[in-house]
Amino acid sequence: MAGEFDLISKYFANQQLKRSDVALSQGDDCALLQAPENTHIAVSTDSLIAGTHFLEHANPQWVGHKALASNISDLAAMGAEPAWVSMAITLPSADETWLEGFCEGFFELANAHDLQLIGGDTTRGPLGITLTVQGFIPQGLALLRSGAKVGDKILVSGCLGDSHAGLEVILDPSKRERAHASELERRHYCASSKVALGMMLRGKASSCIDISDGLVSDIQHIMQRSNVGAQIHCDKLPLSAELIEFTQDKHLAQQYALKSGEEYELCFTLPQHLLESVRQSAQQHNVMITEIGEITDSNTLHLFDNGQALEDDVAGFDHFRS
Amino acid sequence: MAGEFDLISKYFANQQLKRSDVALSQGDDCALLQAPENTHIAVSTDSLIAGTHFLEHANPQWVGHKALASNISDLAAMGAEPAWVSMAITLPSADETWLEGFCEGFFELANAHDLQLIGGDTTRGPLGITLTVQGFIPQGLALLRSGAKVGDKILVSGCLGDSHAGLEVILDPSKRERAHASELERRHYCASSKVALGMMLRGKASSCIDISDGLVSDIQHIMQRSNVGAQIHCDKLPLSAELIEFTQDKHLAQQYALKSGEEYELCFTLPQHLLESVRQSAQQHNVMITEIGEITDSNTLHLFDNGQALEDDVAGFDHFRS
Repeated sequence: MAGEFDLISKYFANQQLKRSDVALSQGDDCALLQAPENTHIAVSTDSLIAGTHFLEHANPQWVGHKALASNISDLAAMGAEPAWVSMAITLPSADETWLEGFCEGFFELANAHDLQLIGGDTTRGPLGITLTVQGFIPQGLALLRSGAKVGDKILVSGCLGDSHAGLEVILDPSKRERAHASELERRHYCASSKVALGMMLRGKASSCIDISDGLVSDIQHIMQRSNVGAQIHCDKLPLSAELIEFTQDKHLAQQYALKSGEEYELCFTLPQHLLESVRQSAQQHNVMITEIGEITDSNTLHLFDNGQALEDDVAGFDHFRS
Repeated sequence: MAGEFDLISKYFANQQLKRSDVALSQGDDCALLQAPENTHIAVSTDSLIAGTHFLEHANPQWVGHKALASNISDLAAMGAEPAWVSMAITLPSADETWLEGFCEGFFELANAHDLQLIGGDTTRGPLGITLTVQGFIPQGLALLRSGAKVGDKILVSGCLGDSHAGLEVILDPSKRERAHASELERRHYCASSKVALGMMLRGKASSCIDISDGLVSDIQHIMQRSNVGAQIHCDKLPLSAELIEFTQDKHLAQQYALKSGEEYELCFTLPQHLLESVRQSAQQHNVMITEIGEITDSNTLHLFDNGQALEDDVAGFDHFRS
């Protein structure tokens, strides 16, 4: 079995990408980096743990993608441009096949975003990956959760609910027979990144968050930080054709869209007068966005279906809720 | 059981320290930070995994200290000044007693270094902590592993070997009866930080590394990066009185000093002409440093005892070496 340092150098040190703001990368006690002037550095840390966020036998390429995608999503939600990533990876054994697949998924996404791996730590233990991503944003232009105003429109990117359907396929083999099961499983792992949209929303969106816990849970984070309420029109939720065929029930698909976590789509609020120009920009960039509701002064979340108020107690997934 | 977000906010969000370069801390998708101009940001990531780096039932206060101390040690080894830390923590359950102890050890050390926790991730899973620390260093003054020159003196801070003795006490209950067993166990977890020494060595030390894998292993990292050899005089290795009494054999204690990992002392090289001034500065700062050898042009490591060459095959601890 190769030694720890051999492993690291073999799989992680030979990446091609070399950013000019990385003065020193792997191989010393620290990386040395230089941030541009007049910018804020946006930093986020996320863990993917086998058994909690993915199954031990999951496709390692998808795991590599997902680990990074969930972190990049936090940068996107702030409107930041990805720059650097540190990786701590814990492995039960030095499984080279697994590492090869993992690196393929990881570096494909990293390279697409000019994101350089600047260092990390490889240890023996239960399978898990913790990434710390860093990106840049001009001072004063970060998209916060705290700026939503009464009357602002609520929008989301992409389609919602697919990730939850994919998770069901993973956890319940009987659902493998359903329409689009494989594709929904892939989507659970391989969310596309919304960095371009986040950067486009700088100075426009009054608030923004990425959908990691589920729309109903994440919109409440905006409500709390902005001290506002919200109403969501379930009939406007963007659903994929695959999800509707998988569930064979549009209302059930809407429930998926409300609670589906790990979507890594953006949920953001816009003042009414910016709606049209943002719609046009999104179209030019080929990014799908959908208006799904409004910010209110009620301090609570109300769900509507075709104008009818719904009683609902769906809540986002909470790792520590029993 | 409290929800994930309650846990995080209760134990991690209420820290007192507020640095002026942290524009936004916890509570959004990312932290927003501002680095000083003309400095490099030094970044290091380290994981502490239960069962690999500490036992599940270890004193949580010590675990909190050790998790941060091992990361700060990487900053110290570069001569960097600590600034920010992100924490990813994985817990099998929301054990509030454990979290309280952990936070006590963690924040005591963080606050002592003006190091602000800027965010993180709490997930359910096997117990483990991954920290990413960041610090500042004026451009061009970082202490690298790559600058050692033939003829430079090799020095270490503190005493070596105690951490390994402490580990033996932890793993072998029969050693609890030996002299100073409890104190050595504490030292294994509660290394003091060498930040002040690292900053003092800026522009002086030709190379530097922190002793995490063991002196013999870590000096070889300097040798490789600097393309030099080294000789170490085992009779000069700084040993604590407690270690000598614990082992009851000075030669055995020297073996501990050579291979003991997780010491978090600094090993550095100095051109001969700076030796005296650095010794005086260290004395003024009340930091113990000891000359233990020289850099050679041999490309190999030679060990001596009272001038006699030793045959030795000790190697640093490698997590993946079978």
